[in-house]
Amino acid sequence: MKIRLYVDHPLGQGQTIPLDRDQAHYLFGVMRQQIGAQIALFNGRDGEWRAEVTEAGKRGGALACLEQTKPLQMPPDLWLIFAPIKKARTDFIVEKAAEMGAARIIPVQTDFTNSERIRQDRLQAHAVEAAEQCGGTFVPEVTDLQKLDRLLTDWPQDRQLMFCDEAEVGAGKVLGEADSGPWAILIGPEGGFSEAERKRLHDLPFAHVVSLGPRILRADTAAVAAMTVWQQALGDW
Amino acid sequence: MKIRLYVDHPLGQGQTIPLDRDQAHYLFGVMRQQIGAQIALFNGRDGEWRAEVTEAGKRGGALACLEQTKPLQMPPDLWLIFAPIKKARTDFIVEKAAEMGAARIIPVQTDFTNSERIRQDRLQAHAVEAAEQCGGTFVPEVTDLQKLDRLLTDWPQDRQLMFCDEAEVGAGKVLGEADSGPWAILIGPEGGFSEAERKRLHDLPFAHVVSLGPRILRADTAAVAAMTVWQQALGDW
Repeated sequence: MKIRLYVDHPLGQGQTIPLDRDQAHYLFGVMRQQIGAQIALFNGRDGEWRAEVTEAGKRGGALACLEQTKPLQMPPDLWLIFAPIKKARTDFIVEKAAEMGAARIIPVQTDFTNSERIRQDRLQAHAVEAAEQCGGTFVPEVTDLQKLDRLLTDWPQDRQLMFCDEAEVGAGKVLGEADSGPWAILIGPEGGFSEAERKRLHDLPFAHVVSLGPRILRADTAAVAAMTVWQQALGDW
Repeated sequence: MKIRLYVDHPLGQGQTIPLDRDQAHYLFGVMRQQIGAQIALFNGRDGEWRAEVTEAGKRGGALACLEQTKPLQMPPDLWLIFAPIKKARTDFIVEKAAEMGAARIIPVQTDFTNSERIRQDRLQAHAVEAAEQCGGTFVPEVTDLQKLDRLLTDWPQDRQLMFCDEAEVGAGKVLGEADSGPWAILIGPEGGFSEAERKRLHDLPFAHVVSLGPRILRADTAAVAAMTVWQQALGDW
């Protein structure tokens, strides 16, 4: 049972899950599954279920839920906030954020961000694919592009912010258990933050500057490294 | 002085550095630098130097070394060993290993590795580019493809091995200061290690199984996460 498929349908004992054209193409065309084949389903809410193919066609199909194989495992309450960069690296950041266990992925526009829009649906699909691949039972939401400025103004009171300032390589605090609770990680754009943004970020009472070593990391590398630091100190690793 | 260029030439007071065709194309064609422009040079041995363009042509050019701006900073004695996967992800692993501060990058053939050869020169060029971009003064060597089996047989006595076994998510030890010295990190191929390989790796006296959380990470994600764990515990972060 190596194939894992995300479906937007309730999963439970006796449930029948219809497949749309894309899913049918993937399961029966690409993966060559047939009636009777068993695959793993999850929907981000009901854990993972073993299901059996009961109908297989070119334009659709159906599966029957057999038994739950994993309970829903929510990731820690961690947001990953990043400034979209070149397409391939933006896709990678979303994929990696899902693998590393972010609960929400927030693309932001900063003073030095070039892109003014993103394809939210495409990024969400990357998060789904990463969840299918990494064995998770949860899919992080990818939000629409927001202005960093606005996000910080509307910041929830109880959420702490880990801010990786590449202008301060080597400096930075170490996260400890005392810092538990809701968190967000902010990864800067290529070219860094503007002076105004840096000043504002440093002055925020909920912001913590954390160092990611003596070399300057690309945004996608920094996202994985920062989430590793956080997951080890405060998350589910 | 934002442009950083790797050159395979001694750097020092009064040195003149000739540029080959590719470097001239990059500096004068792509980056539109002219005579008198200042750029940063490093060669992996003599630190970083501020240099001035003294000749600029289509087929070549020259720079004069002005002063050293950074001493040579060697990364910790860490090897990254990985099984080559799809081209783009292999390129990413090499790039990330250089950014994260590996001293040597070793592609290996495992029981489940598909590729039987790699383009060592292309991977080495990725490591150079990553060093140029991340502000480092050292370029890790990318070795030729080796058989994992052979590498383990010829293993240097004093080098410890961090082995991320995706079949044991959640298990694994925590690295401590007591473990300092030469190290290597081994990242498994997509599809994991074979049973024979896992057994051998677990039995090695110098191997340490380390956990990278409850989700299965892709090889490129695992490389960055594993190096983060190591750099934080034992490296130069």
